[in-house]
Amino acid sequence: MTPPDSAAATPPADALTALRTLLADDMAEVNRLILAYMQSPVALIPELAKYIVAAGGKRLRPLLTLGAARMCGYDGMAHCGLAACVEFIHTATLLHDDVVDESALRRGRDTANAVWGNQASVLVGDFLFSRSFQLMVESGSLDVLRILANASATIAEGEVLQLTTAGDPAASVEDYMKVIEGKTAALFAAAAEVGGVLAGRPAAECEALRTYGQSLGIAFQLMDDQLDYAADQAALGKSVGDDFRERKATMPVIVAYGAGSAEERAFWDRTIGEGDQQDSDLAEAHRLFARHGALEETGRIARRHAEAAAAALDCFPAGAHRTALQDVAAFCVARAY
Amino acid sequence: MTPPDSAAATPPADALTALRTLLADDMAEVNRLILAYMQSPVALIPELAKYIVAAGGKRLRPLLTLGAARMCGYDGMAHCGLAACVEFIHTATLLHDDVVDESALRRGRDTANAVWGNQASVLVGDFLFSRSFQLMVESGSLDVLRILANASATIAEGEVLQLTTAGDPAASVEDYMKVIEGKTAALFAAAAEVGGVLAGRPAAECEALRTYGQSLGIAFQLMDDQLDYAADQAALGKSVGDDFRERKATMPVIVAYGAGSAEERAFWDRTIGEGDQQDSDLAEAHRLFARHGALEETGRIARRHAEAAAAALDCFPAGAHRTALQDVAAFCVARAY
Repeated sequence: MTPPDSAAATPPADALTALRTLLADDMAEVNRLILAYMQSPVALIPELAKYIVAAGGKRLRPLLTLGAARMCGYDGMAHCGLAACVEFIHTATLLHDDVVDESALRRGRDTANAVWGNQASVLVGDFLFSRSFQLMVESGSLDVLRILANASATIAEGEVLQLTTAGDPAASVEDYMKVIEGKTAALFAAAAEVGGVLAGRPAAECEALRTYGQSLGIAFQLMDDQLDYAADQAALGKSVGDDFRERKATMPVIVAYGAGSAEERAFWDRTIGEGDQQDSDLAEAHRLFARHGALEETGRIARRHAEAAAAALDCFPAGAHRTALQDVAAFCVARAY
Repeated sequence: MTPPDSAAATPPADALTALRTLLADDMAEVNRLILAYMQSPVALIPELAKYIVAAGGKRLRPLLTLGAARMCGYDGMAHCGLAACVEFIHTATLLHDDVVDESALRRGRDTANAVWGNQASVLVGDFLFSRSFQLMVESGSLDVLRILANASATIAEGEVLQLTTAGDPAASVEDYMKVIEGKTAALFAAAAEVGGVLAGRPAAECEALRTYGQSLGIAFQLMDDQLDYAADQAALGKSVGDDFRERKATMPVIVAYGAGSAEERAFWDRTIGEGDQQDSDLAEAHRLFARHGALEETGRIARRHAEAAAAALDCFPAGAHRTALQDVAAFCVARAY
């Protein structure tokens, strides 16, 4: 096991920078591929794709593919195509999520669907998903294709499950975990695993990479769900309280509901269950979270998964890439954005 | 060249039945796979998928894959997986189209999005698209994967182009052809081609199959666009005049606009261009079509492409499968639904 202190020794904000610096050349190639594959003679496609892809984001998922491949001793450049592919899958799901959630802000800007309409967001999402598929065919590995195809199906299942559990403040932790394992962790897991598969590493190592990505994805999403209530809106780059307005049964709500009095549960049933919300309700939700330590509990669970992620990489030889990937796990649960 | 008479000798309505009868065992396996792959522990997925997949439709695209493979002498069963894959791609695009078009009827029933909402339609469409991807990975052929990945990207491009040309009655025939080559013909072409690729046939034969599918798809869509105005609503199973209400610049409109007087063009500019439509406008559109023979001209162009489709198969040895595939081309341009 990695002692938790070893990860904490690197200031978390620098952990992502360290990984990016280590993989700067690879990432430049990934960015080149992303720009090349978003091109199309149909002008609206690069226009809309550029808006969402160029908006930045952390590019965490492609970094996992690049870092895993390099840690495994891969010395080619095909991992860049897979990293771009992973980012395209992510971007396509963002476009479709925004349609679904009717979000107004993403990464601090208007969502694409608010600018171009739902129709364009759905179809350009489909285009980017198809592009991801073309990129992974280029890898020439059926194992890689199978992993990413399975991840895509699992992501969609998680998104649909989220839709069916929305509006149920009494949703179980088990259902919530299934949602985030699907909508988030499946792609993190696949992103890390394909790095090892491309490098031709044995099954046990590929499985360890998968566990790393899976645990990291769960930790990441738990923090996302905590930050949706706790973050500074400017730093987060999206609206605080979106999940509340969208009646999502995320971990903070599930914890507060589980520990709540009958009167408190009636509050959650009205606001999340029936969607009957007043302006003052978000502040009341915060008071209930504070009373039951719901945001802290969400953070604690996130940290447990981040530690499991770091520990999963202990089977690899020590080195700069392993350290950076393990530190990223600490970053994910310490980030404020 | 196949003389046009040889195709016309089979009553078109029976041509599809003949192909279905010839491939009945294969099609049973395709239907089994479709049912198996639409399953998911997330209950809403099979529920919604069953609604749209079980609604039937002609299953024309999977029949092309099956027929092409058998005509090429393929004697395995892997072509059934590809046929199911092709149907899933088609179904996913239908689900996303319905979101986009806000159509109220599809195959004579309420659209899925009218029943379950846009959110579920987008996400279950994504799930089916992912499933199509899993099915094609099972084929184990990178050539097949490349063809289908390219087709998926081309479909999305066609759909986006359609979005950007909607509301322009002065759209060029060239733009219209690009739209239907993308949104319809690309999948027909890929469906036929992968049958030959799976059978290990030489490049020239696979290319001939591709030409067959491409021409057939163009003919099919031209007829669809004609039937959208001309069909008996009950037989078609969807609303007549949908394209008019959705302001699509389809071939009948392009023909009538091109041949129209200044006053007639003003009518199209108002109804299609500005979307300012009165109840009596659809009848007026029909009068203008009749004046310029626009529906007949659309049918003539469709028949030309159907004849090219049939001719493309002349390089294959005569036999039941070739005859059935060639007759299907005649069916596509004689159908009333």
